[in-house]
Amino acid sequence: MKTYTFKETNRLLQRARRVIPGGIYGHMSPRYYVPDSDYPLYAVRAEGARFWDPDGNEFIDYMCAYGPMALGYNHPKVDEAALQALKSGDTVTTPSPVMVELAEFLVELVPAADWAVFAKNGNDVTSLSLMVARAATGRDKIVLVEGSYHGAAPWAQRPGRPGTVDGDHSNILYTRWNDYQGLERLVAEHRHDIAGFLSTPYFHPTSADSQLPGEDYWAKVEALCRREGIVLIIDDVRCGFRLDMRGSHEYFGFKPDLVCFSKAIANGYPLSALVGSDSLKSECEKVFATGSFWFSSVPMAAALATLRELQRIDGPRVMQQIGRRLREGMVRIAESHGFDLRVTGVPSMPFVRVAADKGAEVQPELHQRWCGECTKRGVFFASHHNWFLSTAHTDRELERTLDIVDEAFRSLSSG
Amino acid sequence: MKTYTFKETNRLLQRARRVIPGGIYGHMSPRYYVPDSDYPLYAVRAEGARFWDPDGNEFIDYMCAYGPMALGYNHPKVDEAALQALKSGDTVTTPSPVMVELAEFLVELVPAADWAVFAKNGNDVTSLSLMVARAATGRDKIVLVEGSYHGAAPWAQRPGRPGTVDGDHSNILYTRWNDYQGLERLVAEHRHDIAGFLSTPYFHPTSADSQLPGEDYWAKVEALCRREGIVLIIDDVRCGFRLDMRGSHEYFGFKPDLVCFSKAIANGYPLSALVGSDSLKSECEKVFATGSFWFSSVPMAAALATLRELQRIDGPRVMQQIGRRLREGMVRIAESHGFDLRVTGVPSMPFVRVAADKGAEVQPELHQRWCGECTKRGVFFASHHNWFLSTAHTDRELERTLDIVDEAFRSLSSG
Repeated sequence: MKTYTFKETNRLLQRARRVIPGGIYGHMSPRYYVPDSDYPLYAVRAEGARFWDPDGNEFIDYMCAYGPMALGYNHPKVDEAALQALKSGDTVTTPSPVMVELAEFLVELVPAADWAVFAKNGNDVTSLSLMVARAATGRDKIVLVEGSYHGAAPWAQRPGRPGTVDGDHSNILYTRWNDYQGLERLVAEHRHDIAGFLSTPYFHPTSADSQLPGEDYWAKVEALCRREGIVLIIDDVRCGFRLDMRGSHEYFGFKPDLVCFSKAIANGYPLSALVGSDSLKSECEKVFATGSFWFSSVPMAAALATLRELQRIDGPRVMQQIGRRLREGMVRIAESHGFDLRVTGVPSMPFVRVAADKGAEVQPELHQRWCGECTKRGVFFASHHNWFLSTAHTDRELERTLDIVDEAFRSLSSG
Repeated sequence: MKTYTFKETNRLLQRARRVIPGGIYGHMSPRYYVPDSDYPLYAVRAEGARFWDPDGNEFIDYMCAYGPMALGYNHPKVDEAALQALKSGDTVTTPSPVMVELAEFLVELVPAADWAVFAKNGNDVTSLSLMVARAATGRDKIVLVEGSYHGAAPWAQRPGRPGTVDGDHSNILYTRWNDYQGLERLVAEHRHDIAGFLSTPYFHPTSADSQLPGEDYWAKVEALCRREGIVLIIDDVRCGFRLDMRGSHEYFGFKPDLVCFSKAIANGYPLSALVGSDSLKSECEKVFATGSFWFSSVPMAAALATLRELQRIDGPRVMQQIGRRLREGMVRIAESHGFDLRVTGVPSMPFVRVAADKGAEVQPELHQRWCGECTKRGVFFASHHNWFLSTAHTDRELERTLDIVDEAFRSLSSG
């Protein structure tokens, strides 16, 4: 099995570094890939579960654009709906009727939703959710789970990161994931000051194992929030439509007051949505929230087509099944080479780490090397982030993936 | 001349209000239109400088989607570039090479730009500019011009608005537009604490006259910022590419350290850009900024096509010319009916108000009524916001507009 070369990609990155800080910034920065010189950093074509880089290398993609791609790249039903909308006008002086249709669809689909508002970034709606919680309660403080990601806004970044200032976190309190007692103590200390508790449905930090909620964690949190008048906000930006079409809180069996969606909602077209309960509707109306492209029709038409298709085929179930088979195959192959492959999180969004053997701690270097060995043979794996499955990952791609995984372990053993 | 009816629009708004707070929120909310029952609130088609509502009414559009539309809706060159990019993959796991091309193009086009980063909302890049200024200076405070709009993020909203909290503004200082002495005093009071001064190139508040900079205002501000180590940031989101292709600061003859672009940059495709000087490049690289759709190729390809076409035809000059003819025609017609029509700002972004006569103060009710009378005859005018010209506003549309303006004044006189 030949390993890929990345000559054009690295030439392009050099050009990029002259005119873009870091060449590529944010979550797609090459700094996360090890070695960064053997990773595809640009895509010239994408289709189904694959993309191609400027060197002509083909990749089976287990990042799915870090979540947005759910039905496969260039899904015909989604693109057709988008193109129809584009012909009618995308960003116009007033919204399109499709905005009403999409809100009605979400209210029907998501039991926790009595209304919806739309924006562009996941971060637009996580930020808006804090404003709605504050407007509704007249309180200032927001509780976050330490290490969770809710976007790149200063309030959501770790205190002390470059460009953030003390004021950004003056109303943020931190609790630990799955620590109900800790949360209860925090609420007691700040009684009547806490507007909202914002959390992902399960814990999926960067560069660390994912953690599912403890058995009665969400039931207790929900009861605590109700009792204390705290708005319970779920950031379903990353998980949304990969666990349960009705919102990932349904997968875990509880009911939040506000839910933030984005990423998979429109199969890659830029859209996010905040949905919520009737009791918060008039408060949301009072909060000023807008953006130049928030009313564009194309992403809304794409969202309608995406959600209808995901619902029709039960997309989350499909992704969970493929994810389970991927996990089983990889664990078995790792074992056959004497390695231990560990998967946390849900099967449709696995966080994978490779250890030298059953008893060993994970050495990041080994794990990163293994991801790199897979990637330069045609399976895009990021070592620092959970992966994403789509409904477009076919049996053929799964087989090819497992062949490459096998070869990568072999190269580790022999290297 | 028959006035339009809005039966379908109002039916749709009723439906919308059940599932969307306010039916339509943000800057497109019906609350800004008077009377709100006689305005088009939805668009089912758009082409060139016109759009059509669900009742079949046709409007010549002087809002241009509140800025994004610059070359006309559904411009063939822009849409063709976008569709080509879409075929290659829009939101993928890595950026497209078009990102490098667009950054190179902007660095070539805008003399103040040595680099560029891309995002979705104007507000993404105004917020990022504050972070870069803070990272670069190690200082916390940002000076804003009171009444200026920089997006809907809490720091950019007026203190006290629903959902904002005290902490949101703890590092914001306010100065008044065109008041150099006031700015100088503020800087002296907070010496070594001010990271950046963020301002639009001229003052274009909502529901009030626009104000151009005083003759030596920007030269003095630029010198002050240099002297005091304050990062000078221009929010060119609204004005960008309607005054000067090289950035609106070139129109006024000064050089900022950072410039925020969005709206017209891609003729309606969702994109924003922060560009800046070499001295801030490594600081920008340190700041974490990202979003799920920030690397999508379609808006970047659309931006390249938009900027090339605007450059080829000198779009800002074309828009300024049409704006001048619109202004002259409207002023003359108003006078012939005994009214006084006042225009502030630049011709391509006129802020218009109608007064009962030459000496009279503007009565908002009269002005709003006039905008409504024009709109229900087929010219979309918003009373609270500056209008936008595009290169797609033709002679024929200008003539039709002036006919409607004439008729609207007649109806005011007789009403």
